Amino acid sequence: MTALGAQRAEELARYRRACDYIAAAMIYLRSNVLLDRPLRSEDVKPRVLGHWGTCPGITLVYSGLNRLVRDTGRRTLLVTGPGHGAPAVHANLWLEGTHAEHDPELSVDGHGLRELIQRFSWPGGFPSHLSPEVPGVVHEGGELGYALATAVGAALDKPDLLVACIVGDGEAETGPTAGSWQSAKFLDPKTSGAVLPILHLNRYKISSPTVFASMSDRELVEYFGGCGWSPRIVDVTGRQVEADAVLAEALDRAHSDIAEIQREADRSRDAAWPMIVLRSPKGLGLPETDLDGAPLEGSFHAHQVPIDDVHDDPEALRLLESWLSSYRPRELFDAHGTPNDDLLSVPPSNSLRIGMTAESNGGRLRTELPLPDVGRFAVDVPAPGGAQAGATPTLGPWLTRILRDTADRRDFRIFCPDELESNKLDAALEATDRCFTREVAGYDRPLSPDGRVMEVLSEHLCQGWIEGYLLTGGHGLFPCYEAFASIIDSMLNQYAKFLKMSGEVPWREPVSSLNYLLTSEGWRQEHNGYSHQGPGFINNVLTKKTSGGRVLLPPDANTLLVTMRECLSSVDRINLVVAGKHDAPQWLDLPAAEEHCRNGLGTWPWASSDGGGEPDVVLACAGNIPTIETLAAVQLLRRALPELRVRVVNIVDLLALATPQAHPNGAGDEVFAECFGGAGTPVVFAFHGYPSAVHELLHGRPEPNRFHLHGYREEGTTTTPYCLLASNTMTRHDLAADAARRSRLPHREEVARELLRERDELVEHAHRNGTDAPAIREWRWT
Amino acid sequence: MTALGAQRAEELARYRRACDYIAAAMIYLRSNVLLDRPLRSEDVKPRVLGHWGTCPGITLVYSGLNRLVRDTGRRTLLVTGPGHGAPAVHANLWLEGTHAEHDPELSVDGHGLRELIQRFSWPGGFPSHLSPEVPGVVHEGGELGYALATAVGAALDKPDLLVACIVGDGEAETGPTAGSWQSAKFLDPKTSGAVLPILHLNRYKISSPTVFASMSDRELVEYFGGCGWSPRIVDVTGRQVEADAVLAEALDRAHSDIAEIQREADRSRDAAWPMIVLRSPKGLGLPETDLDGAPLEGSFHAHQVPIDDVHDDPEALRLLESWLSSYRPRELFDAHGTPNDDLLSVPPSNSLRIGMTAESNGGRLRTELPLPDVGRFAVDVPAPGGAQAGATPTLGPWLTRILRDTADRRDFRIFCPDELESNKLDAALEATDRCFTREVAGYDRPLSPDGRVMEVLSEHLCQGWIEGYLLTGGHGLFPCYEAFASIIDSMLNQYAKFLKMSGEVPWREPVSSLNYLLTSEGWRQEHNGYSHQGPGFINNVLTKKTSGGRVLLPPDANTLLVTMRECLSSVDRINLVVAGKHDAPQWLDLPAAEEHCRNGLGTWPWASSDGGGEPDVVLACAGNIPTIETLAAVQLLRRALPELRVRVVNIVDLLALATPQAHPNGAGDEVFAECFGGAGTPVVFAFHGYPSAVHELLHGRPEPNRFHLHGYREEGTTTTPYCLLASNTMTRHDLAADAARRSRLPHREEVARELLRERDELVEHAHRNGTDAPAIREWRWT
Repeated sequence: MTALGAQRAEELARYRRACDYIAAAMIYLRSNVLLDRPLRSEDVKPRVLGHWGTCPGITLVYSGLNRLVRDTGRRTLLVTGPGHGAPAVHANLWLEGTHAEHDPELSVDGHGLRELIQRFSWPGGFPSHLSPEVPGVVHEGGELGYALATAVGAALDKPDLLVACIVGDGEAETGPTAGSWQSAKFLDPKTSGAVLPILHLNRYKISSPTVFASMSDRELVEYFGGCGWSPRIVDVTGRQVEADAVLAEALDRAHSDIAEIQREADRSRDAAWPMIVLRSPKGLGLPETDLDGAPLEGSFHAHQVPIDDVHDDPEALRLLESWLSSYRPRELFDAHGTPNDDLLSVPPSNSLRIGMTAESNGGRLRTELPLPDVGRFAVDVPAPGGAQAGATPTLGPWLTRILRDTADRRDFRIFCPDELESNKLDAALEATDRCFTREVAGYDRPLSPDGRVMEVLSEHLCQGWIEGYLLTGGHGLFPCYEAFASIIDSMLNQYAKFLKMSGEVPWREPVSSLNYLLTSEGWRQEHNGYSHQGPGFINNVLTKKTSGGRVLLPPDANTLLVTMRECLSSVDRINLVVAGKHDAPQWLDLPAAEEHCRNGLGTWPWASSDGGGEPDVVLACAGNIPTIETLAAVQLLRRALPELRVRVVNIVDLLALATPQAHPNGAGDEVFAECFGGAGTPVVFAFHGYPSAVHELLHGRPEPNRFHLHGYREEGTTTTPYCLLASNTMTRHDLAADAARRSRLPHREEVARELLRERDELVEHAHRNGTDAPAIREWRWT
Repeated sequence: MTALGAQRAEELARYRRACDYIAAAMIYLRSNVLLDRPLRSEDVKPRVLGHWGTCPGITLVYSGLNRLVRDTGRRTLLVTGPGHGAPAVHANLWLEGTHAEHDPELSVDGHGLRELIQRFSWPGGFPSHLSPEVPGVVHEGGELGYALATAVGAALDKPDLLVACIVGDGEAETGPTAGSWQSAKFLDPKTSGAVLPILHLNRYKISSPTVFASMSDRELVEYFGGCGWSPRIVDVTGRQVEADAVLAEALDRAHSDIAEIQREADRSRDAAWPMIVLRSPKGLGLPETDLDGAPLEGSFHAHQVPIDDVHDDPEALRLLESWLSSYRPRELFDAHGTPNDDLLSVPPSNSLRIGMTAESNGGRLRTELPLPDVGRFAVDVPAPGGAQAGATPTLGPWLTRILRDTADRRDFRIFCPDELESNKLDAALEATDRCFTREVAGYDRPLSPDGRVMEVLSEHLCQGWIEGYLLTGGHGLFPCYEAFASIIDSMLNQYAKFLKMSGEVPWREPVSSLNYLLTSEGWRQEHNGYSHQGPGFINNVLTKKTSGGRVLLPPDANTLLVTMRECLSSVDRINLVVAGKHDAPQWLDLPAAEEHCRNGLGTWPWASSDGGGEPDVVLACAGNIPTIETLAAVQLLRRALPELRVRVVNIVDLLALATPQAHPNGAGDEVFAECFGGAGTPVVFAFHGYPSAVHELLHGRPEPNRFHLHGYREEGTTTTPYCLLASNTMTRHDLAADAARRSRLPHREEVARELLRERDELVEHAHRNGTDAPAIREWRWT
């Protein structure tokens, strides 16, 4: 008991007893919450929902951190991986008074206690897992794997912050967590805060032992040591009395090690950060066995609701009562339920309370990003098609400017799994370096601990980092190869849920949007082949359309600039932007780009031949490659079928296609009809992604079957750009032929056949010569 | 040079020289492939595509394995994580004669050599990455992260097989790979083969150093040692001459360690399996610097096409020529291009050639699974709704029987991230144990190294394992919580591509389908809350609809049995089955279930009130919970609007909704009209997942806008089942009210209002009492 005197140890033990009791009561009770009288079946919630097993360990850590914060004054954010241990976090938040700060009904007295206990896992009340409704929380923890990456993201650029992160040993089996341990090498001791991981090793999942349960202390120390951490193993099994003291000692050492690393920042960039492995029995505090003699404390039976059947089996009810009574609640609360004074003085006070850490409501800290005038970065487009430029190479210098302008503020970062160079955004590296704390001998470019470009070959890490960064007040951009964005589909799912719920919590302030820039789109991954061709991330984001998801397909460089400006100033959204990185014709000058982006979709009269009247056919396009092919198709039709009245419509905001009833961005019925023509007008639609994405949006629009989609049909390989389009029937020739066929003009069939013959010749040319014909490669809009 | 005499070392070095030359030539050349005359620009492919950096290292490993196989006779499968190093694998396959076995055009002579070199990265030829067109390959490697898990899956139940696995140090940064190192604890030395991971540490990705490049030898040994491997570090940097010898020594030691572990299987279940960390300069063999003086060999500049601009810059062309000439091809091939005899005798012969390993074309080894008669496991359903049963608990014993019947064959496994018990499939554990090689003190249930249930809290590991298992001839089932299946969205994307391409390769035999069973569906995750509610995996599988994806929604236990029987006997498909685990009313006896599943969708006359004539409204349902709510809605309508003619249609095979033009499973126009009525008939459709999934499928059907979808609208929390349905407007009351409203009957509005009032009362009841009203909880179909 070096770190803790006997009195404080006793204090902490009592505090934990109170928290454990409250957590257990939250899972079980609806009345008689202080056990004033013998427990009856009707005191127990009809649906007993919650997870007990991890709760006592979470409270052990939480109260240990309380003590550390009080002794050191270190501002501390807690990221709790096992989010199903919500009762423990609630109990701590209530006792420290954080809950009362956000909701007066949760006052630190008998009324608040009853309210807290009743609300948990009750319809209309608190969910069974952590969620944005819970103060102090930046991570839900329902889907396991991302706590540690989130914690690291939360620590970036907050040098005075300690982010403690509980990682369950179940969660530790996941790939994303396993990969996250490498994050230590990205934490700058100077400009970023510290992360203190606490592996909570209680040995069991739902019904099985964990993989980590089978590892010896030596293996654990080697594994984490190899990753750049300096682990301390704290085993409280069978040491309930000294538990607080042994943990306190480890926490104190970790804290002083962190302080030392940060003090010697210039010399300690390779230092191993401390971490703790906490061995503790699952469900600590439970009776040893259940009524059938199966083990409870220290076994997987403690995972969820440890004693069941309490409504039907009086013996089970008695066992529950005896368990709950073992916490002796009447020693902890007065007759009304107000906690005794000695408990109230245990946690830190005011803004040092862990649940009150400002970063946990990051929107409150967020300030608008200084966004440079896009006019100075725009491409000069004297006429549609009258300039060539790359979209992401145009965007790069604008981002560079933002990075320069935020060099002192340090609240904007780029997170990128495939490297900026490959996405042609390397201009950004003129303003800052790649972030890495270690030096790599022989590498001839700068790596800096305080670099603000985070590159790692892990979409999971990038996503976890950016989530933590945004939720604590930062701004960010996530450029990614299109096909590999799907790697974090499920993380996006969970983050969208977090944002959606946050929006319903009055005290949560809006955070910066999560901005994806998919730059290496499948249509130009013809060199890398089939595995690099997959636009399905769009379909996933569309499932979030009602909770902040947007799909934006700027057709050229200026529309990309305008789109990104909008995204980086928006809040609480998930913006998926798809853009090209190669040189391509430019369509819109800046004013036209501004208007087009404002409208979300629009007719391009300069490309149309309907004279403003009703067209024979509408050629619609969404995405930069489909736009090029569509305009090339228009040229083919001018030659082959000059009498055809064509209207060209371009869509930037994919959700403009949805009905206004289905989505707020949906174009009004009139605008929609103005674009796509009246009843019976065929629409040949060239779409960047899977046709299904447009099909689903058109539901509810009049006559959706008049839309004929061309898009990615899962045909791919290493080939030429034209051949890749051809195998998915999305070449200019396919589009023109389809448009011709759907017109009512005579000779339409002959024209279509001739166009498709030309296509087959071009494919044949590519197979013979290994490249697209110059007519395709060097195509210009005139 | 202990392991290798001077002569064999020389032999191997020459062999590698040949392979390296061929690989480099594949990337660059279209003619003059033996450098018979000075290299001209027109000898170089117009599009130079490929990745050189990793190639020499892959060949070093491949030829090292060749030597090992020849010396030991150990059958060896190679899984190559860096699939972009395809040229190296091709070169080896060609020289060993495997290519010629599959395609006579790739004969081991000058003709074959020219063909191989020309085809690579050429339109219509070989893709730039590994793919199913390449013999010996069970892993594409384009999306990084899954090589090691695939290798472990491939080794399961093949005790005589060695699976060598090259893991790039870029790939090693990914979460899935980081998590895969724990696989060592699931490899039974007795019943499974050995996996030999080779971390190929060449220090650079596209333009950055890797994280592993910054780790010291000590850190590497600790990291992998902590995970249960015994790593040997082989550094060939600056040791080109001894490279083969030092690797051979490590391979020999690894092999004898493996042999020892397998020999002592009963006593060595905790033994650390050997692995190799191979440090080698990236792009070994390149000139030291490029024309600008930037480093080539040993730097990230070697990653892709190391010397560019060869068409425009004569100096670059000369540099390329001098690099290629450095391999002295004329010493390796005769004037026609046939490799010299001494090269041909280096690799193993016949079926021991690494590319010829039978498991790499697993369909050839696959035998039909013995599927028990479902009749003996079916639920007795005397009348629709006349029985209660759980779907997965009914399926469990049938699976148990399969596990028993395959106890000797050992070709069926269950892979499950959330544990079988929680998915109510624990009956399976009567036939086999959970697989784990280590003993876990205190755990009171059996864990066995040879157990055939693979449980680990990692969807990524389960998916990688099952992919490797299926592609090498096995059968498998992957039960998973519905919401968390999205974790492996992108792995599914890549696997679907692999299957699609395999189907186009004549010599690839069909493999068993990949069968998902999503058992803990969102509608009954009302206790775990919002993070556990997400049916988006359906949307992802639908993007694979043309490449083997199926979505099957059996409404009860007997339809689940019939569905799973169909799935487990099918090949080359991705079957997504969603089923319930809780007790629920049963609708179809076995003969009816057989017929319903055969048709994919159908009218349920016993629930309809249209007397076989035209209905006022169709109530359609897909999924077990939507089916229950729909039938309850029918009951409500009988009471509230008895004159309403209702037809009930149930959909098992979601793709039956697609048009026959869009998908082969699409119901014919007549069947579709028979089910969903003629023009103007409103369809109120209760769907298990996001409405968008049905919207996209209906595109092309007549009047799709008459379908009014109810489904998951991304509204969720911890609540009661009824309240969860209510917040997504999918309760029986919502469906009945919608059906009433869409009829043309008088009083429809009053009836609908009254139904919705009832709904609101039930929600209110739940909020007051904490549980659904008995009328909901104990609902029976009568």
